[in-house]
Amino acid sequence: MAVRAAVAGASGYAGGELLRLLLAHPEVEIGALTGNSNAGQKLGALQPHLLPLAGRVLQETTPEVLAGHDVVFLALPHGQSAAVAEQLGPDVLVVDMGADFRLTDAAAWEKFYGSPHAGTWPYGLPELPGARAALEGSKRIAVPGCYPTAVSLALFPAYAAGLAGNEAVIVAASGTSGAGKAPKPHLLGSEVMGSMTPYGVGGGHRHTPEITQNLSAAAGEPVSVSFTPTLAPMPRGILATCSAAAKEGVTAESVRAAYEKAYADEPFVHLLPEGQWPATASVYGSNAVQVQVAYDAAAGRIIVISAIDNLTKGTAGGAVQSMNIALGLDETTGLTTIGVAP
Amino acid sequence: MAVRAAVAGASGYAGGELLRLLLAHPEVEIGALTGNSNAGQKLGALQPHLLPLAGRVLQETTPEVLAGHDVVFLALPHGQSAAVAEQLGPDVLVVDMGADFRLTDAAAWEKFYGSPHAGTWPYGLPELPGARAALEGSKRIAVPGCYPTAVSLALFPAYAAGLAGNEAVIVAASGTSGAGKAPKPHLLGSEVMGSMTPYGVGGGHRHTPEITQNLSAAAGEPVSVSFTPTLAPMPRGILATCSAAAKEGVTAESVRAAYEKAYADEPFVHLLPEGQWPATASVYGSNAVQVQVAYDAAAGRIIVISAIDNLTKGTAGGAVQSMNIALGLDETTGLTTIGVAP
Amino acid sequence: MAVRAAVAGASGYAGGELLRLLLAHPEVEIGALTGNSNAGQKLGALQPHLLPLAGRVLQETTPEVLAGHDVVFLALPHGQSAAVAEQLGPDVLVVDMGADFRLTDAAAWEKFYGSPHAGTWPYGLPELPGARAALEGSKRIAVPGCYPTAVSLALFPAYAAGLAGNEAVIVAASGTSGAGKAPKPHLLGSEVMGSMTPYGVGGGHRHTPEITQNLSAAAGEPVSVSFTPTLAPMPRGILATCSAAAKEGVTAESVRAAYEKAYADEPFVHLLPEGQWPATASVYGSNAVQVQVAYDAAAGRIIVISAIDNLTKGTAGGAVQSMNIALGLDETTGLTTIGVAP
Amino acid sequence: MAVRAAVAGASGYAGGELLRLLLAHPEVEIGALTGNSNAGQKLGALQPHLLPLAGRVLQETTPEVLAGHDVVFLALPHGQSAAVAEQLGPDVLVVDMGADFRLTDAAAWEKFYGSPHAGTWPYGLPELPGARAALEGSKRIAVPGCYPTAVSLALFPAYAAGLAGNEAVIVAASGTSGAGKAPKPHLLGSEVMGSMTPYGVGGGHRHTPEITQNLSAAAGEPVSVSFTPTLAPMPRGILATCSAAAKEGVTAESVRAAYEKAYADEPFVHLLPEGQWPATASVYGSNAVQVQVAYDAAAGRIIVISAIDNLTKGTAGGAVQSMNIALGLDETTGLTTIGVAP
Repeated sequence: MAVRAAVAGASGYAGGELLRLLLAHPEVEIGALTGNSNAGQKLGALQPHLLPLAGRVLQETTPEVLAGHDVVFLALPHGQSAAVAEQLGPDVLVVDMGADFRLTDAAAWEKFYGSPHAGTWPYGLPELPGARAALEGSKRIAVPGCYPTAVSLALFPAYAAGLAGNEAVIVAASGTSGAGKAPKPHLLGSEVMGSMTPYGVGGGHRHTPEITQNLSAAAGEPVSVSFTPTLAPMPRGILATCSAAAKEGVTAESVRAAYEKAYADEPFVHLLPEGQWPATASVYGSNAVQVQVAYDAAAGRIIVISAIDNLTKGTAGGAVQSMNIALGLDETTGLTTIGVAP
Repeated sequence: MAVRAAVAGASGYAGGELLRLLLAHPEVEIGALTGNSNAGQKLGALQPHLLPLAGRVLQETTPEVLAGHDVVFLALPHGQSAAVAEQLGPDVLVVDMGADFRLTDAAAWEKFYGSPHAGTWPYGLPELPGARAALEGSKRIAVPGCYPTAVSLALFPAYAAGLAGNEAVIVAASGTSGAGKAPKPHLLGSEVMGSMTPYGVGGGHRHTPEITQNLSAAAGEPVSVSFTPTLAPMPRGILATCSAAAKEGVTAESVRAAYEKAYADEPFVHLLPEGQWPATASVYGSNAVQVQVAYDAAAGRIIVISAIDNLTKGTAGGAVQSMNIALGLDETTGLTTIGVAP
Repeated sequence: MAVRAAVAGASGYAGGELLRLLLAHPEVEIGALTGNSNAGQKLGALQPHLLPLAGRVLQETTPEVLAGHDVVFLALPHGQSAAVAEQLGPDVLVVDMGADFRLTDAAAWEKFYGSPHAGTWPYGLPELPGARAALEGSKRIAVPGCYPTAVSLALFPAYAAGLAGNEAVIVAASGTSGAGKAPKPHLLGSEVMGSMTPYGVGGGHRHTPEITQNLSAAAGEPVSVSFTPTLAPMPRGILATCSAAAKEGVTAESVRAAYEKAYADEPFVHLLPEGQWPATASVYGSNAVQVQVAYDAAAGRIIVISAIDNLTKGTAGGAVQSMNIALGLDETTGLTTIGVAP
Repeated sequence: MAVRAAVAGASGYAGGELLRLLLAHPEVEIGALTGNSNAGQKLGALQPHLLPLAGRVLQETTPEVLAGHDVVFLALPHGQSAAVAEQLGPDVLVVDMGADFRLTDAAAWEKFYGSPHAGTWPYGLPELPGARAALEGSKRIAVPGCYPTAVSLALFPAYAAGLAGNEAVIVAASGTSGAGKAPKPHLLGSEVMGSMTPYGVGGGHRHTPEITQNLSAAAGEPVSVSFTPTLAPMPRGILATCSAAAKEGVTAESVRAAYEKAYADEPFVHLLPEGQWPATASVYGSNAVQVQVAYDAAAGRIIVISAIDNLTKGTAGGAVQSMNIALGLDETTGLTTIGVAP
């Protein structure tokens, strides 16, 4: 018996990627598709790569339209999920791809998002310690941000194994789809092709408290995070270059051993063989995470680099993976570790 | 019982794409992988996007290695397939992704390839009139070139319906993967990013006789073809802009009707709604073909534009589709019309 | 004594490129800069590559602001130039980078632009027969469209020499800056990177009548033009692939000879040596035009390919070149044939 | 009287960019051009963007060919400059664009380059304290590496002003031209478009000791450097994201004041207005450096980001700027702060 899924926000990049994955999911039947400003339009005009859904018409995001589904995915602007979720009732699995329910610290939420904190839901990054247990059977899932996914999977094993000091410096490059589909001058192709540029420098990016939350939990103590995101001339992908001061006694071998242990049984996280480095092209369209580690003895730092597809593992793939766990399906159902390259 | 498939030439772009598709094919089990200059290396170093095969080691391309498979795919340089195919015996399905067996005209072969003609195999473009019948049960398949796939599907209905005069002008833009993985200065990222440039101008490209063969067959008379390929700054995709003089009495409606009829039941060819134009991004990684038509009354020409992924429908997807037919499987098995976008 | 120049529309791509060139022009002093929606803003925030002008503030486009200059460049939306030009008086050199005064045929203007025809000014493509004489001393210049520049320079010599039949088929690829800086969803980096897509297919593009006008003038008879523009994943550049049926007796040698003769003394048009093909990267930021010709005997067509920078020779460089002629300066002043590559 | 300049290594990217700049330099006359593997070929086939030199023929790199010039630029592989320089005599200005004479520490040279140390020449980064004095009248110049240029200009003011602790974490993204023109599979357009990937991770990149040298000199004490370079999908540009622990008492104001003071009179380094961030596109083809600073109070770090064109300010522009100083010309002759954008 199929799981019937609705998608609120089906015209954007996150919604489109989710539909791409759900179309390939053997247990899911795609139900209502909504998109407020695009309601009434055919999906074929908005997501021309999703041919099997080309004739589907977008509806308004109302409780009536979203009723009658087993799962409702919310790909809405920040701040809109709480109201919609409330109307859906406690028995529907609600998967929020926005930020509203990711943070545990209400003060951090208010500082970075400027609105009252809506609450905290089980966090959809199954690879983190304890995350799977919280997701199993849950009716609410907060899908992580794309940068926090890439960065947390790069660094948490070093903190969990007690190898890294309590500060981390992270510089991440993201493809432009991370900035969404709303047209803004600085996101024009003419502007982004051939250009690298930073934004949210100095701790201002909203993913900073989420990264801090995850790394501090792994370390068991507060970790100070310096996070600089940059916009790269590519449509998809995040390359996160992360480092932390090595604690005394750390060696290249102990670092590698910690990551081998952490990821030995993870279906989506792949620690590359020594000498090979992650590339975003290798995970294009896939739910895989490529990770590599180094120990820079001269600088006394552990360097960990991860590559993900920001729309797949970083958003919609992570959502499906967490949904699978919540519904008791095999965690990998409908997902792949195979990228589309070159 | 699974179909056991070997791939000769697994380290290149065509071989890599084929493996990507075969990994998702429910009836195929991947057997031997060969690659002469890379024999002995792990696939993970050469095709880092194919994580499930990362540990597989490439072997030499010998009859012994290729023996014992139901299907052998040849992704070899032009001129090498005949010798390998002969050694495989008549009961193995041999799918040649090179050019050796595509042309029916030995003189055209010799003029464009400079070597003796090896023969002609059933042509793996199922959408062409009569092609499916020739492929059913066949033990030999000649996979079409990428440009001929895009161009023939754009233009054959106009010729088959008697709407187009006997000359065609074609300008096609291809992503760089069509030029292969052998490193050459003009294919460096530094050279191709930000640049459009033509090649093989004036009828010299080897795909010209193949296009001519297909269009002439559809027209029932010789069609004169002007074909100019260009290299575009993108890894994948072909956009073919094709036109032909309209015969008397042609209207916008009669053109559209011919294409609606030709593609009504085709699983992979999608005639877009009026007003929407093909984009290579929409078929990225998919086996779909997006087609749109126009009639320019002032110029008296029919304009047809098609978009494909040169590695999928243009090479490896076309190979799998034809293999499915030859083996009596559903033609769409393991293939998708869903692109990875944006 | 410097030529004092004002630029109306300094915040867009055409205006920015013009300023880049004027900053390097030894005879020009940059005066007022205007931009209605951006009036009051500093240029440094809008054109961050023009560091010497970073502190300049944009003004409103009014007769008072534009008064007191020797030259006024208009980089305004179509239809706005006539009113502004009238207010400037007959003694100021007005260079219109929009379309308003390009066409001689009022009916063609009205059909393609949907508004009354404002008139016809001397046409700023000096390489066309008779164009320089019309520009010398003129107080009004209509700068050609970017596509008509690339296409006319590719094909007019074949028509002027009587080698080509009276139809032409043109497919041109343009970088995204040709579509301007106004943010629209289909121009987002996420959409254009990795994608080729056509637009204005079937004769609908507004540059079609301008191309027709130029080629017909060269041929001395009406030429029928099939023109298909495509959007390429690069910020700048046009590659125009043009062809026409060869008249009887045409040979590869006679085609080449016609182009050698036409361009022997042209400072900006460079007929490449045989065997070398134009690439948009080679003319990036330069006023050069690279041209190459071929004769396809089998198809009976002359193929001519040109590459320009759409913002330089295709817009702002063409404007400066024509201004130089109008003012009696050396035509090449402030312009270069050197591209920025790779 | 013109300065006569020879360029050894004129067929590569550094040599091509140097020629682009020298063509625009009013005091320089371009003499011999050499390129060993390409000797005998016309420059037009190798550097098609340099139209004024298209007919020049490359010669062998011999003392005879290089004799009779006032300046000889060496754009040779590492390790070849010392032998050539010796043969040129002490009165010729030799500008080495390779690494041979950059490092003062012979042990660091031998560790990172694996060959005997050739010596140390005046360092061609005029903005560093004391650098101009050493360059004035010098007959030997060691042009800095591209990454050290971007990173040193980003961080030295913080160290010189005593604001930063003695460790620095640097992640820099470079366009592909930094990797040169020799064709290698991982530099193919098919591989780099759409992909970000790191290399030389963990302190292994040869620019690490050069960065360390510059920052330690500014700090007056050893600075520990963690440097991770990444390859970005663009032909040109470096974006360097640099940070260091802030010393006690540091404020956002004190950081900004230090940079305002350091760069108030520098012709090529531009501290952006607050709120605006560097973008590589803004310095495309220009000798400008765009810099912006932030103080992250929560993380206790100073963040400085710089953007340069790796081939211009990072290589050939830096070489010309230093040559100007050595020859007593105005430092900015032949150079621009205007980028080519979009």
